[in-house]
Amino acid sequence: MHKIAIIGTGLIGRFYTTTLKHYRGKDEIVMACAKEEAEAAKFAEEFAIPRYTSDMAKAIQDPEVDTVIVALPNYLHKKAVLLAAEAGKAVLCTKPLATSAEEAREMLEAVEKAGVFHGYLEDLVYTPKTLKALDSTRKGALGKVLWARSRETHGGPHSDWFWNKELSGGGAIMDMGCHCIEIARSFIGKENRPIEVTCWADTQVHPIDAEDHAVGLVRYDNGAIGQFEVSWTFRGGMDLRDEVSGTEGTVWLNHWMRTGFEMFSSVGQGGYVAEKAEGDTGWMFPVGDEIGALGYVEMFLDMFNAMDAGKAPMETFYDGYIVNAVVDACYKAAQTKQWEPIELKDWRGADGSEKATTQALKEYDAEHYLIKEELMPSGATKWILKDKKTGAISQVVK
Amino acid sequence: MHKIAIIGTGLIGRFYTTTLKHYRGKDEIVMACAKEEAEAAKFAEEFAIPRYTSDMAKAIQDPEVDTVIVALPNYLHKKAVLLAAEAGKAVLCTKPLATSAEEAREMLEAVEKAGVFHGYLEDLVYTPKTLKALDSTRKGALGKVLWARSRETHGGPHSDWFWNKELSGGGAIMDMGCHCIEIARSFIGKENRPIEVTCWADTQVHPIDAEDHAVGLVRYDNGAIGQFEVSWTFRGGMDLRDEVSGTEGTVWLNHWMRTGFEMFSSVGQGGYVAEKAEGDTGWMFPVGDEIGALGYVEMFLDMFNAMDAGKAPMETFYDGYIVNAVVDACYKAAQTKQWEPIELKDWRGADGSEKATTQALKEYDAEHYLIKEELMPSGATKWILKDKKTGAISQVVK
Amino acid sequence: MHKIAIIGTGLIGRFYTTTLKHYRGKDEIVMACAKEEAEAAKFAEEFAIPRYTSDMAKAIQDPEVDTVIVALPNYLHKKAVLLAAEAGKAVLCTKPLATSAEEAREMLEAVEKAGVFHGYLEDLVYTPKTLKALDSTRKGALGKVLWARSRETHGGPHSDWFWNKELSGGGAIMDMGCHCIEIARSFIGKENRPIEVTCWADTQVHPIDAEDHAVGLVRYDNGAIGQFEVSWTFRGGMDLRDEVSGTEGTVWLNHWMRTGFEMFSSVGQGGYVAEKAEGDTGWMFPVGDEIGALGYVEMFLDMFNAMDAGKAPMETFYDGYIVNAVVDACYKAAQTKQWEPIELKDWRGADGSEKATTQALKEYDAEHYLIKEELMPSGATKWILKDKKTGAISQVVK
Amino acid sequence: MHKIAIIGTGLIGRFYTTTLKHYRGKDEIVMACAKEEAEAAKFAEEFAIPRYTSDMAKAIQDPEVDTVIVALPNYLHKKAVLLAAEAGKAVLCTKPLATSAEEAREMLEAVEKAGVFHGYLEDLVYTPKTLKALDSTRKGALGKVLWARSRETHGGPHSDWFWNKELSGGGAIMDMGCHCIEIARSFIGKENRPIEVTCWADTQVHPIDAEDHAVGLVRYDNGAIGQFEVSWTFRGGMDLRDEVSGTEGTVWLNHWMRTGFEMFSSVGQGGYVAEKAEGDTGWMFPVGDEIGALGYVEMFLDMFNAMDAGKAPMETFYDGYIVNAVVDACYKAAQTKQWEPIELKDWRGADGSEKATTQALKEYDAEHYLIKEELMPSGATKWILKDKKTGAISQVVK
Repeated sequence: MHKIAIIGTGLIGRFYTTTLKHYRGKDEIVMACAKEEAEAAKFAEEFAIPRYTSDMAKAIQDPEVDTVIVALPNYLHKKAVLLAAEAGKAVLCTKPLATSAEEAREMLEAVEKAGVFHGYLEDLVYTPKTLKALDSTRKGALGKVLWARSRETHGGPHSDWFWNKELSGGGAIMDMGCHCIEIARSFIGKENRPIEVTCWADTQVHPIDAEDHAVGLVRYDNGAIGQFEVSWTFRGGMDLRDEVSGTEGTVWLNHWMRTGFEMFSSVGQGGYVAEKAEGDTGWMFPVGDEIGALGYVEMFLDMFNAMDAGKAPMETFYDGYIVNAVVDACYKAAQTKQWEPIELKDWRGADGSEKATTQALKEYDAEHYLIKEELMPSGATKWILKDKKTGAISQVVK
Repeated sequence: MHKIAIIGTGLIGRFYTTTLKHYRGKDEIVMACAKEEAEAAKFAEEFAIPRYTSDMAKAIQDPEVDTVIVALPNYLHKKAVLLAAEAGKAVLCTKPLATSAEEAREMLEAVEKAGVFHGYLEDLVYTPKTLKALDSTRKGALGKVLWARSRETHGGPHSDWFWNKELSGGGAIMDMGCHCIEIARSFIGKENRPIEVTCWADTQVHPIDAEDHAVGLVRYDNGAIGQFEVSWTFRGGMDLRDEVSGTEGTVWLNHWMRTGFEMFSSVGQGGYVAEKAEGDTGWMFPVGDEIGALGYVEMFLDMFNAMDAGKAPMETFYDGYIVNAVVDACYKAAQTKQWEPIELKDWRGADGSEKATTQALKEYDAEHYLIKEELMPSGATKWILKDKKTGAISQVVK
Repeated sequence: MHKIAIIGTGLIGRFYTTTLKHYRGKDEIVMACAKEEAEAAKFAEEFAIPRYTSDMAKAIQDPEVDTVIVALPNYLHKKAVLLAAEAGKAVLCTKPLATSAEEAREMLEAVEKAGVFHGYLEDLVYTPKTLKALDSTRKGALGKVLWARSRETHGGPHSDWFWNKELSGGGAIMDMGCHCIEIARSFIGKENRPIEVTCWADTQVHPIDAEDHAVGLVRYDNGAIGQFEVSWTFRGGMDLRDEVSGTEGTVWLNHWMRTGFEMFSSVGQGGYVAEKAEGDTGWMFPVGDEIGALGYVEMFLDMFNAMDAGKAPMETFYDGYIVNAVVDACYKAAQTKQWEPIELKDWRGADGSEKATTQALKEYDAEHYLIKEELMPSGATKWILKDKKTGAISQVVK
Repeated sequence: MHKIAIIGTGLIGRFYTTTLKHYRGKDEIVMACAKEEAEAAKFAEEFAIPRYTSDMAKAIQDPEVDTVIVALPNYLHKKAVLLAAEAGKAVLCTKPLATSAEEAREMLEAVEKAGVFHGYLEDLVYTPKTLKALDSTRKGALGKVLWARSRETHGGPHSDWFWNKELSGGGAIMDMGCHCIEIARSFIGKENRPIEVTCWADTQVHPIDAEDHAVGLVRYDNGAIGQFEVSWTFRGGMDLRDEVSGTEGTVWLNHWMRTGFEMFSSVGQGGYVAEKAEGDTGWMFPVGDEIGALGYVEMFLDMFNAMDAGKAPMETFYDGYIVNAVVDACYKAAQTKQWEPIELKDWRGADGSEKATTQALKEYDAEHYLIKEELMPSGATKWILKDKKTGAISQVVK
């Protein structure tokens, strides 16, 4: 049973609060903090939160509070986290952790020095689909993961500060790439070091300084590739998909627009259908359980269960730091137009790992390796072979 | 904060308990009751439930317990419910409520006479998708509902008693038709009286007495049709889908095998993939959040929230009684091979409702009604018209 | 190389002609016949057809013509077919064959007496998906077929005469049920006799005399069930799906709205998207190859190839007659509210077939049959058993 | 009516021949040429082709032949094309056109100098879905295309020479990237010049020299991005998808594994299910019309119709040349690890085009531009604004 201060009452603070209130849970939000007193009061009333304030320090230092949830614009994360560390409170910070790897590292050091519990609220690795797919992956269902694509695109974020590079630290990469990078990293395996990136980023549609569309490739030391696609220019709703390919299997996750809920209406229903949905007539693809599908439910369960068990949660500030470092390299690569190394002053994964050769040498017979076997339309089977000595490639059909 | 006795520790008791334990909730299961003491002990240990017994009465009468959850085979529901009513405890009973409408009515009378809270645990109307679709339907997105199909098919139930007509009261209709009937009824509107049914039922595959496959049509007094399809002969996993058609819209829900989670594995993962899944290699369609997708989460939230608010939940024993009455008529119709009336001694919905004519008379011009307008491949538009006086049908293309 | 007269230039005649002209084929349409001379002339010009007329007999008797395609409203099929038989020409007739089984039988007798080639243009059993699924079914991939559902629903037909019961012979059952009945029959196996039907039919929306929505069940002598769902009240486009369940497998075909083509447009494209699509903005589901997906291409290939090979095509007037007989029984059952027998004066399939028991007696051990085996979430396996002597049902978990 | 020589009788030659024979078409294959006389004889017999040879020149120079179809391994394309040009025959060459841009340019010059009809057999831009989506795109349904992803992955090609870099000119990029590049280019618009590429390529699984997995980004002068993903390491069948995003819309095409045909079988059917399918039990996703879905049907129709009309087909050798140039740049970029320019000595598209700014300045009021408008879960609408003078970003909620 925890007593929580929610710092920030925008869309993300609202999602977090809704999640924590919905399940008749024993963890309670006892303090709400917003920029404006009036806004805090209104939020507290709406969600039956006993106390509120516009003073961040006061909220964090409230004696009853043992856990601080940071749901603020990116440029304010550091301030809130340092206050929480100082106050000796557990701190859960929304994504991205910081506006740069350097800032993230300061925050990580602060919480580690203070010895407080720290959780990185990267909700999209906590969706029930993702958790189950990660579990299957770890159990070997996909063999070795070779490639993981994560995509998040929609028509653009809902608050002004996102569009302002100074406050957010970047555009679509900072806003959504942070999700995609961590999703791919989770499938590839966190013990593998991300080495370098190539990245395209452009401002294609909106009258802003930051990029509104970007694609990047992150190469890991075991040869795997993480691919992210982010956009604020997408039309049709919110596209939230992951695809993973391994030597033995494949995973396709569709989190938002094709989840088994399809609705057509010629007349509409006068209101909100799903996050980022465009309109309420024609064919629509609502999501049944939005907060579950976005991972908020399992994320908070993991955070509080880990806290109670005296363990680290699945996502810590260290993970947030890694993600920020990858994002930094992406912005650099988009400028230099070459692959850029990911600088990690603090790397805690497997060390010096050489590329583990995945290339499998399956024996066909004494003289040949098997490259491939395929059933042909004619009903025959074809084997593509490689001569062990000469390397010559040939085929046999039977 | 409720103190719960769970009566029955089979698959459904396990699902209920898992749901209640998972969300760090404040409602607690304090007593577990199974047929055998050893089984009860094992279950209590697994789920950290403080007390257990094989004595149903003792479990229900436990002074700390305020809520009884009945998770027993069908033929035992009545006994448990009467004990709970007698003890003045809130009682939540799994589906179907009883093995016949007559038995259901006795149970309904007992809880109403005792004045205890009663909830009918029809989980599948509580899936987040269903709740949201019902909400859209009520807001008018579909216009008037004309037809609702609900389908549940798989390879057969997991416990012996289901296959024994004497213990279960029937076959696939009793087991799964009860879900489908209530789902369709919820979309059509509970105020509308179900009038009559036609039904096909057969034992096509399994060496049992009960039907392992059935299809039925339920006609409501407003002209709408509920359609159920249930089978224990289905291959490929569990098929759990609803389709609703209205004058202004359409809803398609796929709850299990096509929810945006697709996985291929050539090697498997050595274990359980999803309820009723056949094997763990090849293409698989796991469900991310199984207990959420089956409605258990929102169902218990509604039950306990309603209890706290002093209101009836969305599904009460009265609903269970209606469903049993429809099931009874289905079994009769399958025998007599004709449409059979649904006998409802206790009807609390809209009364004497005539068929509300949906037939719309849209004016085309002074002389004609519009039957239909369609865009043709040529780019032209065609209007099908009916002469207001003569009734003659004609068309105009422009 | 055939010389064809197309009799009828409405939507279906247009689809047929487009199909025959598109593939640089060697079979040629040399004569077009429409109700009005001007319409025939316009059609002939559009499709570069050398001759045209409004005189049906003249078109059919044209000396160059060897094949007559009847693409007329239902009430005119008989007249055209009798003329073709008389003229000794091969005749291909659109669906339904006739407005009643009696009329269909007359037409069948006429072409058989005349010894001319006769093909029933039931396109929807000729879609490439259906042909491949039927082939897999015949090869045993589904085991014994237990149930086949075929569904065709949209907002209503495109020509005035469809809506006039006198000219069409019925409503949605006559228009689209004929497709669904033959699709289900093809999966179940044409050698199996359709025995009886139950049917619901109603006029729910349109100001017409015929039914605009219907569902029916057709029971075959081998215990299989064909299910059709037809509607002119559906919203959202054209829903064209088949589902087949067998003892060993399942087939799901979606022919129209979910075929791997999804498009969102906020602005539209100013025109036709797909047959029966509602509008050109929002999410749309066009069909790539409409004439292929509706079966027209493979249907005509089969017809002309069969003609050249001196064989019967896959679909003959006999099949059309069976379908009309089932439709007749459906209309009767919708009236009498009981299962009605299907009257087949001319039955050429397997005779006196008893219900082939599908019920499988799989041995578990010396004392028990196996009813079912299932992998449980816990990882254990459960076997449901039946005692060979007592019939008692029990379970074992390991 | 054309008389065709098919040069090459491997899988692609078989696909082409099947396509040309299937539709009762008037164009005839009169000559088959294979490496070995016996193979040619067998192929000719199977497809009822009157003449055959193992002498390529003889086949091409055959006096009856007016059209040569080159269906050979990549390293032999040039030889066959030059012979055809010399003989003054129309020539249709399979993809990729050549093993390098330089070679492609020689071939282009040869056919242009000879004045013969030349078609580039890039089938995947001719699928009915692609053609219809391209048509919608050109009509403006997507607005300006911003990004086009094309993906082709499977377990590897079916013939030995593909795996041998010397014979094929490369690995998965050469084999399948050529498709993806031309698909993206078609959506973005062929008048736009492809400028530069970044590319990742690796040999992750197979014991070969060429890449078996690659991802690349192609930037066009109008700011659009083409993205290709190709792999010979994919598990689960053949993944063939295109996704296009524009300022006003979105297109998603799934050509192979999710086309509305789903089948489960516990027993299989003893044979081929679909190209690259893995096995014949479990859930399978056959394709109804394989040759149609791969574009072969419409491709040949366009080729012969264009020939008869004296026009260029949609895909000419010039297109093949452009694709080879992009492929060359990809191989270079994969080596140099930086964006590489695409060298086009022969560019025939729009010239000197500056990046057309897509960035839209929509007015909100006299002082502000509108960045974005969104419906919030609360039902309110939020507008994100930019001050016209100061550039400051703000928001309004109503």
